[in-house]
Amino acid sequence: MTIQMASNETGEGLDEWRVSSEELQEFATQALMAVHTSPDAARSVSAALAEASLRGVDSHGIRLLPHYVKVVQAGRVNPTAQLSFRLIAPAAGIVNANHGFGHYASFFAIDHAMVLARENGIAAISVVNSSHFGAAGCYALRAALQGFVGIALSNSDSFVLPHNGIRSFNGTNPLAFAAPNPGSRPLLVDMATSVVPWNRVQDLMNEGKRLPFDVAVDKAGEVTDDPAESASLLPLGGVQFGYKGAAIASMIEILSSVMSGMPHCSQIPPMRGPDFSTPRRLGHYFIVIDCRRLLSDELYKSGIAAYLEDLRTQQAKQGQCVMAPGDKEWSAVTDRTRFGIPIPRHLRSDLDALADQLRLSRIEYESAAFEHSDSLSDVGR
Amino acid sequence: MTIQMASNETGEGLDEWRVSSEELQEFATQALMAVHTSPDAARSVSAALAEASLRGVDSHGIRLLPHYVKVVQAGRVNPTAQLSFRLIAPAAGIVNANHGFGHYASFFAIDHAMVLARENGIAAISVVNSSHFGAAGCYALRAALQGFVGIALSNSDSFVLPHNGIRSFNGTNPLAFAAPNPGSRPLLVDMATSVVPWNRVQDLMNEGKRLPFDVAVDKAGEVTDDPAESASLLPLGGVQFGYKGAAIASMIEILSSVMSGMPHCSQIPPMRGPDFSTPRRLGHYFIVIDCRRLLSDELYKSGIAAYLEDLRTQQAKQGQCVMAPGDKEWSAVTDRTRFGIPIPRHLRSDLDALADQLRLSRIEYESAAFEHSDSLSDVGR
Repeated sequence: MTIQMASNETGEGLDEWRVSSEELQEFATQALMAVHTSPDAARSVSAALAEASLRGVDSHGIRLLPHYVKVVQAGRVNPTAQLSFRLIAPAAGIVNANHGFGHYASFFAIDHAMVLARENGIAAISVVNSSHFGAAGCYALRAALQGFVGIALSNSDSFVLPHNGIRSFNGTNPLAFAAPNPGSRPLLVDMATSVVPWNRVQDLMNEGKRLPFDVAVDKAGEVTDDPAESASLLPLGGVQFGYKGAAIASMIEILSSVMSGMPHCSQIPPMRGPDFSTPRRLGHYFIVIDCRRLLSDELYKSGIAAYLEDLRTQQAKQGQCVMAPGDKEWSAVTDRTRFGIPIPRHLRSDLDALADQLRLSRIEYESAAFEHSDSLSDVGR
Repeated sequence: MTIQMASNETGEGLDEWRVSSEELQEFATQALMAVHTSPDAARSVSAALAEASLRGVDSHGIRLLPHYVKVVQAGRVNPTAQLSFRLIAPAAGIVNANHGFGHYASFFAIDHAMVLARENGIAAISVVNSSHFGAAGCYALRAALQGFVGIALSNSDSFVLPHNGIRSFNGTNPLAFAAPNPGSRPLLVDMATSVVPWNRVQDLMNEGKRLPFDVAVDKAGEVTDDPAESASLLPLGGVQFGYKGAAIASMIEILSSVMSGMPHCSQIPPMRGPDFSTPRRLGHYFIVIDCRRLLSDELYKSGIAAYLEDLRTQQAKQGQCVMAPGDKEWSAVTDRTRFGIPIPRHLRSDLDALADQLRLSRIEYESAAFEHSDSLSDVGR
């Protein structure tokens, strides 16, 4: 997960604009409907994109819109797929995404999971025949905002080195977890199980910077600090301790794909092509827990509040602070709700080109002038 | 998780002996019953200890026996605790360990979870008022050996630095996951969410060695390679990326304690004392999934076999091999079933002293002469 910082302080003219999440969401909906995406699916995708952008998860935000349009046009994703739900046991079900958008299927799945969890205490939904679902956190968060503990998992194509290996095998297999925090924003974990997401490598390449130590390897499997030479990500734990990150990736792979008959990582057509027409048949797995069955609202509320208070007040290194999972995202939401979502020049170009291609009105950046903020640089990166 | 290597090749006489897991288990049962542990609880604890030792997880194996005897004698653990189970929803329940052994409560909980999962597709059991449960893998594995996917989680007292912090806050909060692999041994993840377990630091101190880079910090929160100066472990991901390991630890803390009203990490009396009389009220959380509801046995079997085959045949670095989670443990089981469990000199002294204290027969190491093997050194560490 990467939080992109606003940066128009180069003095060389405007390199970045700010747009409200509502405008981005509306533009995304229009773009997706222009390629014949059903209104419900389009709204699901655009809501997930806008939410990720608002939370500062730019890797999974509005920047993916041109990609999603492309995969509809090329045939990988069916824009009018009908979702189906099958209950296979009182607390378990399967959603068939029928090669439509993963976001649409995933919101549908988490909603079913909440209904089943309320009846059974816990429930799980497998999503089959799906596609990229964006930021996993969107679905866990949807559950937490309704009082449930939510877990969202997905497999992906090969990006990550197996421990001791030299070529990509595991996916970045995201893990999201959200727990209600009554009266305040949920605790939110939303992470790839690689050290960094692939997008972070691309960002650093675009910025002409080197990689941090121990995050990626070259084609020979050797650690590199050159983004252009990077061929695979390292699993969380890096070269020495990556067997732990790789083990978590295996766990997520099995829950998301093996357990529901979907292809595993190395069998999936790569997200980045060159084949954009074959459905990828990704699998997702959602677990929802109704913690209100376990203890009273009062006890839960005081327990989570005590934990978060204790965590956030831990003594920090000089110039740092100890944050709870999700605090950085909530800080981004506060900033971006007020000042807008930062759109760097290359993304503006991409979105303008998309508008032209689809004969839509371009986003009116001029009217989206927000007071500028760099408050985010305070929360560490 | 640490795999201890056998090493009696110093030429300075015998520094290590080998004993069968059956003998160790029997000795552990006798020792626990000598301090009035109920037979069922004693057998649960000794089975878990012997199994961990057999799997090479020496940190959670027979070496913990003197500690467990001590905490019974001092009053922290009630050796005759009665377990109770309460169904709170069709797929969820609570086991009250009543301050008895965590192992006993956890086997009881995973067995209940399997019954509920068979009915409901998925089920979860919270264990409250518990104590140290040994290696989390024991419980996940029990489910996998009966055809279920199993997840075992626990909180613990503070051992691990929060990201950007300088003092221990999170527990090592173990995560275990096991998936059936019909006709062969299950896939098994069994790990602390710190970079290394605390025991690894202690081992290296005993061996006069330095720590690997980026695993522990001193009292000021600075990374140290001196085991004697180590005050806290780093979360998985180390100094730079430890926010991911810390986030996983938070997830496990909430599932294990906050969600069932148990105290969180910093509120728990430390495992290592000085208080050995106050019950620690640990919480565990078990999730069991009946994947036979999701797809046919044949499809599951071919899917997991294809995944494992694909993973294990990935091209490896020179002199290494790519293993699936649990392969190292299964290799240890093969070795140790044949040659016995290695007992180094200091552990033999501890177990002999325990036998003398409890007026039990010492383990007869002489009769436990196994052919020596160092095959384990082949599987990497």
